[in-house]
Amino acid sequence: MTGKHGVDIRETGRERGPANHVALTPLSFLDWAESVYPDKPAVIHGARSFTYREFGERCRRLASALSRRGVGLGDTVSVMAPNIPALLEAHYGVPMAGAVLNALNIRLDADTIASILEHGDAKVLITDIAFSRVIGPALAKLETPPLVIDIDDPERAPDGTDDGEPLGEIDYEAFLASGDADFAWEGPEDEWQALALNYTSGTTGSPKGVVYHHRGGYLNALGNAITFGLDRHSVYLWTLPMFHCNGWCYTWAVTAVAGTHICLRRADPAQIFNAIRAHGVSHMCGAPIVMNLLIHAPDEVKVKFDRTVEVACGGAAPPSALIASMERMGFRVTHLYGLTESFGPSMFCAWQDDWEELDPAQRAMKTARQGVRLPTLNAARVADPETMRTVPADGKTMGEIMLRGNTVMQGYLKDRDATEEAFRGGWFHTGDLAVRHPDGYIEIKDRSKDVIISGGENISSLEVEEVLYRHPGVMEAAVVARPDDRWGETPCAFVTAKPGMDGISADEIIAWCRQRMAHFKCPKTVIFGPLPKTSTGKIQKFILRGRAKALEEP
Amino acid sequence: MTGKHGVDIRETGRERGPANHVALTPLSFLDWAESVYPDKPAVIHGARSFTYREFGERCRRLASALSRRGVGLGDTVSVMAPNIPALLEAHYGVPMAGAVLNALNIRLDADTIASILEHGDAKVLITDIAFSRVIGPALAKLETPPLVIDIDDPERAPDGTDDGEPLGEIDYEAFLASGDADFAWEGPEDEWQALALNYTSGTTGSPKGVVYHHRGGYLNALGNAITFGLDRHSVYLWTLPMFHCNGWCYTWAVTAVAGTHICLRRADPAQIFNAIRAHGVSHMCGAPIVMNLLIHAPDEVKVKFDRTVEVACGGAAPPSALIASMERMGFRVTHLYGLTESFGPSMFCAWQDDWEELDPAQRAMKTARQGVRLPTLNAARVADPETMRTVPADGKTMGEIMLRGNTVMQGYLKDRDATEEAFRGGWFHTGDLAVRHPDGYIEIKDRSKDVIISGGENISSLEVEEVLYRHPGVMEAAVVARPDDRWGETPCAFVTAKPGMDGISADEIIAWCRQRMAHFKCPKTVIFGPLPKTSTGKIQKFILRGRAKALEEP
Repeated sequence: MTGKHGVDIRETGRERGPANHVALTPLSFLDWAESVYPDKPAVIHGARSFTYREFGERCRRLASALSRRGVGLGDTVSVMAPNIPALLEAHYGVPMAGAVLNALNIRLDADTIASILEHGDAKVLITDIAFSRVIGPALAKLETPPLVIDIDDPERAPDGTDDGEPLGEIDYEAFLASGDADFAWEGPEDEWQALALNYTSGTTGSPKGVVYHHRGGYLNALGNAITFGLDRHSVYLWTLPMFHCNGWCYTWAVTAVAGTHICLRRADPAQIFNAIRAHGVSHMCGAPIVMNLLIHAPDEVKVKFDRTVEVACGGAAPPSALIASMERMGFRVTHLYGLTESFGPSMFCAWQDDWEELDPAQRAMKTARQGVRLPTLNAARVADPETMRTVPADGKTMGEIMLRGNTVMQGYLKDRDATEEAFRGGWFHTGDLAVRHPDGYIEIKDRSKDVIISGGENISSLEVEEVLYRHPGVMEAAVVARPDDRWGETPCAFVTAKPGMDGISADEIIAWCRQRMAHFKCPKTVIFGPLPKTSTGKIQKFILRGRAKALEEP
Repeated sequence: MTGKHGVDIRETGRERGPANHVALTPLSFLDWAESVYPDKPAVIHGARSFTYREFGERCRRLASALSRRGVGLGDTVSVMAPNIPALLEAHYGVPMAGAVLNALNIRLDADTIASILEHGDAKVLITDIAFSRVIGPALAKLETPPLVIDIDDPERAPDGTDDGEPLGEIDYEAFLASGDADFAWEGPEDEWQALALNYTSGTTGSPKGVVYHHRGGYLNALGNAITFGLDRHSVYLWTLPMFHCNGWCYTWAVTAVAGTHICLRRADPAQIFNAIRAHGVSHMCGAPIVMNLLIHAPDEVKVKFDRTVEVACGGAAPPSALIASMERMGFRVTHLYGLTESFGPSMFCAWQDDWEELDPAQRAMKTARQGVRLPTLNAARVADPETMRTVPADGKTMGEIMLRGNTVMQGYLKDRDATEEAFRGGWFHTGDLAVRHPDGYIEIKDRSKDVIISGGENISSLEVEEVLYRHPGVMEAAVVARPDDRWGETPCAFVTAKPGMDGISADEIIAWCRQRMAHFKCPKTVIFGPLPKTSTGKIQKFILRGRAKALEEP
């Protein structure tokens, strides 16, 4: 008698059971690292350092303390913090309690934070007091505010710019102390269980809550560890915000090999170079802006180091000049591609040995491409979004990048329509337009139209225009990207004033925006005049992009 | 409305679908390697070499040809071959057709082969003509013989010892040619689907058919790749038989990183040293017997190499003297532990940096232990098989090693009772008796049946053997129980002397032991001569026990 698995398993006793089938979860990596390397440094943050045993204990205390407060299966715990141990601990402690981690973008404004806390049903908010000026007003907007826990990080800036008032009922360290270091957590029953909730920057409307599953977190962590050669000697510097796709799953990948996490409150070049020297950093990640910071750092902070530091660069394509400058300083840059919906990295520009022979310009053409899928992603293709047919690998025919595999999100929280739209035809639609080259490498040709990527953050032009349009003197407005050496791109606003309101100034417009949205989203440039339009009245952004590009260097 | 995954997924559209949930299978690694590194050497065998594109094509041809012959979901395809490309291709081509790979131990006799082909319902047998003298009679015993495909490997021994008659209806290369290189295979619908069928060597009765699932093959391949630092530069020499647990899943792990497989018909020391030099081998695996071959090879075949070759050693604990000799030759030995039931390696003796400071003897005590679990196994513990309670980590209390995780077999084919017995209490019972040291490392003290009980004291035969191996005149040693009126049992040593060391006496060996261990543990009897071994090179202690029992009363 044969069946789906060959000989009928009922006859032979080959069903799944606790001995041979355990839900995949990245939490298991901490359990492993602690059991094998208990005395190895797991986390270093300024003067503080935790071994894997201590790190494990702190995570279990957090899980236990949350449980004692009634936080459990499927509850959301939000965290507003830079790359400090508390946020890393939340990547383990929160799901150990069965809950879902929602790491907040620390650059967001109070309104957006409030809407995320509300949409995500945050039951707890753990917040660094440096952000009290934003979090305070955000909490004031909520009908049922979460339990608030304050982090008073000893590594805050000594000049007081990071200072703030505690907002909550308990300090983070006191909260940990209330938990049990031996808390007997259990992994998820089902690896499809929600692990994390990450909000997109909302380029096409309001932010969407991307739900990660334990299965994907586990697999993308392993995929990253293999692709970037992490091992127990790896020292990983946290230059990439952990709130970006859970630090592209490196929060779990570094632990999976029992490497060392080096925390960093701020991607400051002097601190980065110091850390590389002091801790023997081997790996780091970041958007091109981070690399720009290092390249343009004053000579006195640049440290020479005697080994190659691997840098995985994503969020935007790194210009070839940037890659070359980094290599001269001793870094090796690998270009990554991914989205919030794909747990961060899903593709990388895999190095081919025959590229060594190319001249630098030719090589840069190769390495600036988004590349090929990670081994843990099942498929990445470029296809026509209408016909769903794969385009030829001719380096010319445009299509949309579509992904399929276990490192793709569950879907968008409370948004069945958006989820179905994103998954139509059985593929995840990235919205990025690209070609496939004859060697199989994918290259993005046009980032889904109107997004501005500034300092690694996506800015929705629609959102900025919305604010501009609310100004009493503005008749029409359009916002496009303006190339910028430091930030990659900055928002550039083209504005037509209302009749009789010609007196408004660029400074006035910028000030208006800064009062109403996160500063990084505000236009850095404002140009007045009529807007070019199609015959049907649509603003021709490609013309404006050309104008923005042609402006003199700021 | 909240549910198992937080907000009810029916409300928000977060069910599994083709875009975000794909069955895990090691087949996906070949697909990946071929797409990213199509022109890289995948397989080298003597004068032949296949790129990843060619390797992929050959595997798809095999799958296609099998499909055209009606081989499909759940059918068994057996292969009798040494480590040649055809067997490696079967690791992909067979499951690509939905079928189950049964790699046969080439050292088995015709009766055992016949009973395995019958028990496993082999529908196809692919067999190297070197084994026709065994396979011919085996096929003659079968009521319904499988489709037989002959492999005529050009690398067979030039002296004719490997020659044999074709037995089947078609040659392997002709069979491949009948298949489609573009065969559109599909991965398993369910990752629990059977991937491979591996028969145990049957040290405790008749061979049992261990069924592997795609999920475990995928995860153990990744676990091995991470633990042993495989990457795209890895050159893996096939000194370990692929018929052992599918080459401990390295058949898939090397492909997962797009490394190069170096095939080898026979673990011959001259060929091994040649391959290391010719191909820049970086990794290899094997039982201690393979290392013994290298250590005792004539000086003229020993090649010096300028880098460290990683050797993963399992199947039996490597004596510390063996590890030291290998290191002097430029190898780094990692001790592994696993079983057929655990997809091969499930534990390894993870190196700790502070072991560097130990003297060689102390260090060898550390590295000879079975160690800790791979990161992809969920739990390994030492527990009392009666009470199922974990024993204290005191280095003294004996218990049974029990495993739990996704790299444990489905069960035994057509043997529900044995499966249930192996999985009783929700753990896989290895049958190995061990202690756990205070540092968490597990050390096997004996197979349950190999323990010698003398005067009420348990004596580990391994411990005695460890001391014997350190004697300069001893090449191989095995210790078993000899019945004794007074003590119940006493240790009886069977020893093979090194070439030219025939002069050593029993008294000398016993005196050596008494200087190095408690007197009650020392052999009371020493017998010189060659040791009986299984087809897989394991010493057959049951034969030695018989001999010890037959000795005249002391």
